[in-house]
Amino acid sequence: MKTSRRAFVGATAVTAAHIWIPKGVKGYTAGEIVPVTPQRAGISKWDLDTPALCVDLDKMERNIAKMQRTCNANKIAVRPHAKTHKCAAIAKMQMAAGAIGICTAKLSEAEALLAEGVDKILMTTSNLPPAKIRRAMELKKRYPGFIQAVDWDQNARDLQDAAKTAGVVADVVIDVAVGTRSGIPPGEDAINLARLVDKQPNLKLRGMLSYDGGAQHINTFAARKERTLKNIEENARTYEKMKAGGLNTEIFSGGGTGTYNIYHLVPGFTDVQAGSYIFMDMQYVAIGNVDGQPVYDDFEPSLTVLATVVNNRFSGRLTTDAGAKALTINVPHAGVIGEPGMDYNAGSDEFGSITFKEARKEWKMGEKMELIVPHCDPAVNLYDYIYGIRNDRVESVLSVTARGHSQ
Amino acid sequence: MKTSRRAFVGATAVTAAHIWIPKGVKGYTAGEIVPVTPQRAGISKWDLDTPALCVDLDKMERNIAKMQRTCNANKIAVRPHAKTHKCAAIAKMQMAAGAIGICTAKLSEAEALLAEGVDKILMTTSNLPPAKIRRAMELKKRYPGFIQAVDWDQNARDLQDAAKTAGVVADVVIDVAVGTRSGIPPGEDAINLARLVDKQPNLKLRGMLSYDGGAQHINTFAARKERTLKNIEENARTYEKMKAGGLNTEIFSGGGTGTYNIYHLVPGFTDVQAGSYIFMDMQYVAIGNVDGQPVYDDFEPSLTVLATVVNNRFSGRLTTDAGAKALTINVPHAGVIGEPGMDYNAGSDEFGSITFKEARKEWKMGEKMELIVPHCDPAVNLYDYIYGIRNDRVESVLSVTARGHSQ
Repeated sequence: MKTSRRAFVGATAVTAAHIWIPKGVKGYTAGEIVPVTPQRAGISKWDLDTPALCVDLDKMERNIAKMQRTCNANKIAVRPHAKTHKCAAIAKMQMAAGAIGICTAKLSEAEALLAEGVDKILMTTSNLPPAKIRRAMELKKRYPGFIQAVDWDQNARDLQDAAKTAGVVADVVIDVAVGTRSGIPPGEDAINLARLVDKQPNLKLRGMLSYDGGAQHINTFAARKERTLKNIEENARTYEKMKAGGLNTEIFSGGGTGTYNIYHLVPGFTDVQAGSYIFMDMQYVAIGNVDGQPVYDDFEPSLTVLATVVNNRFSGRLTTDAGAKALTINVPHAGVIGEPGMDYNAGSDEFGSITFKEARKEWKMGEKMELIVPHCDPAVNLYDYIYGIRNDRVESVLSVTARGHSQ
Repeated sequence: MKTSRRAFVGATAVTAAHIWIPKGVKGYTAGEIVPVTPQRAGISKWDLDTPALCVDLDKMERNIAKMQRTCNANKIAVRPHAKTHKCAAIAKMQMAAGAIGICTAKLSEAEALLAEGVDKILMTTSNLPPAKIRRAMELKKRYPGFIQAVDWDQNARDLQDAAKTAGVVADVVIDVAVGTRSGIPPGEDAINLARLVDKQPNLKLRGMLSYDGGAQHINTFAARKERTLKNIEENARTYEKMKAGGLNTEIFSGGGTGTYNIYHLVPGFTDVQAGSYIFMDMQYVAIGNVDGQPVYDDFEPSLTVLATVVNNRFSGRLTTDAGAKALTINVPHAGVIGEPGMDYNAGSDEFGSITFKEARKEWKMGEKMELIVPHCDPAVNLYDYIYGIRNDRVESVLSVTARGHSQ
């Protein structure tokens, strides 16, 4: 995927600065744009104040293109999950590349992205309190491209009431559980719920979801594929029964970055909800690829955090300025690019503590290093913006539109 | 500590709403105030959309008062650390209660709080890259109450250059290490650095810091006290030598919520940098109190997250809408208020997974529960605002002024 560049005159009267806009996006909104000051635009990423969250635009664009190309070849659609990036500009890039819509996990995430022009959103979890359901239907009124998951009888009834009050017909998918975390169990319960939705005058049944959160990080592709196909069996039978019963099954959605190249084998499955593939992280790098190799290299790690060395006084140790508030404390630990022998502990809120037996170079006080984050989703959620980097220079600053929108 | 209330007419023309302003604060700035909509002001906290970060104002005020009272009695000052709350309004409450200043960990934190009128700030870590040092000195020019830590010879020289360029005399404290994380080791290195600072025409030596991060969470007060006093011995000798050498030692600062009632035993120690005491969390609750009891009850847990039950279908399990993005994955796990037998796993980004053998009540779908966070500092850093609650009703909405300012 190629991108175009376009000049943007900052509203702050500070300067005219170049902002990178994804190809195919008609116009952009204020929320997508962070003023690029003369100190930032075009500077080397190594001159950024740290900790700094950066995305290598070439790599991210290749990741987006590869996901689309693979799914096109597998005859399955892409509906990327925005819980990873929470970023309207990136959602629009995904849509421009061929995605049929975007997923969000939370209502407040959907509200923020819809307001910034991401117009096709499927919310993958249900809203339970009636006040929140009413808010969702107010959203539906303004944005017809909003689809809402439902996983409980009472929830379907509350949604019918709220849709009627708002004067809309709500698009609904049944969230059918894989495991015990969320969703209605597959089988008769799910089918009865689909029938209930289908009967409501203000609800329009669109199909079902089945997200297998536990399958994404299973080590080795062969084991992941086996477990994924086994776990989905009962849900696939439920789907077949819904279809045979004359219920609308135009959506059968699920999957993620670890399983995007598996679900096309499930009859009827329509689209993959992958999120992390655009950025990658230490968790996904470790799961193994389709060729049986231990490193998962289907997608390139594009997301990094720049950090500064603040203490090199002790042998075998370094301290940096990027701790839990910059990286989260997920495992595996952050990876120091170019230093495979270093262990990076972000357990301290403000500091990173590195231990090593051997380093490839001598690290100086004030020197900057680049890290691959442990787990991309919660790391992005710590930052208000991501520096868009091309050839090691800042090309754009992307707002994390729905940062902190965990409601 | 008592607070006053004051009517505030929202600039959004939506409504007039009551905003709570800490007593003793003359005026307030836009950054402190979040518009309180009619849906929020005065409503029960149980009607808030979840996950919601809440502080019980009565409890927080009692915590602030108790810290000040205890330190007054111990003849040691309070200089609370703002890395915990990142909130200008709370910093002003602490100052109004008698704090001599506020600490920040990062320059961007100091910038945000100074801009909102918190006028006495000691930055407890050094700034290393020369560009950042220059930024710090630009800050000093605008806000004379800014004090900067230094922990390295070159850093002192760079600071002298930047202070000269900015036309200021920088107030400097030497960050003397306890352990290996940050700071210059105690002894001759530290004293030589203090001498170097003292000689620079644009630097004014004010004293030294010694923060023992590892001591705060040691279990049992007796063990904590023993280790704290042992760990500080060499730093205290360094302090005495600095003093004997005619160097300015008007500041000898350190300590935290776990050790606030220990450092007054160290000769010359001037002030305690406690942060978490205002909120408390599951980590601090477990460290034991001065009376030898296992629960640390010097301060009351005032900070909670409200969450909604989204799945109760499986025996011995509940799923909520508050995962890692609402609570962090620190340990000990979040505590469910009223349900001591529940284990709350926030390992999933969007969901909390509760397991239990016995519950005190039957939890319904859509019902709300209240949680004590695992570790307050990084949890607060996930939210743009904190609901100020009194008698279970929303009284105010406090901006987390420096949220995400990890630079």
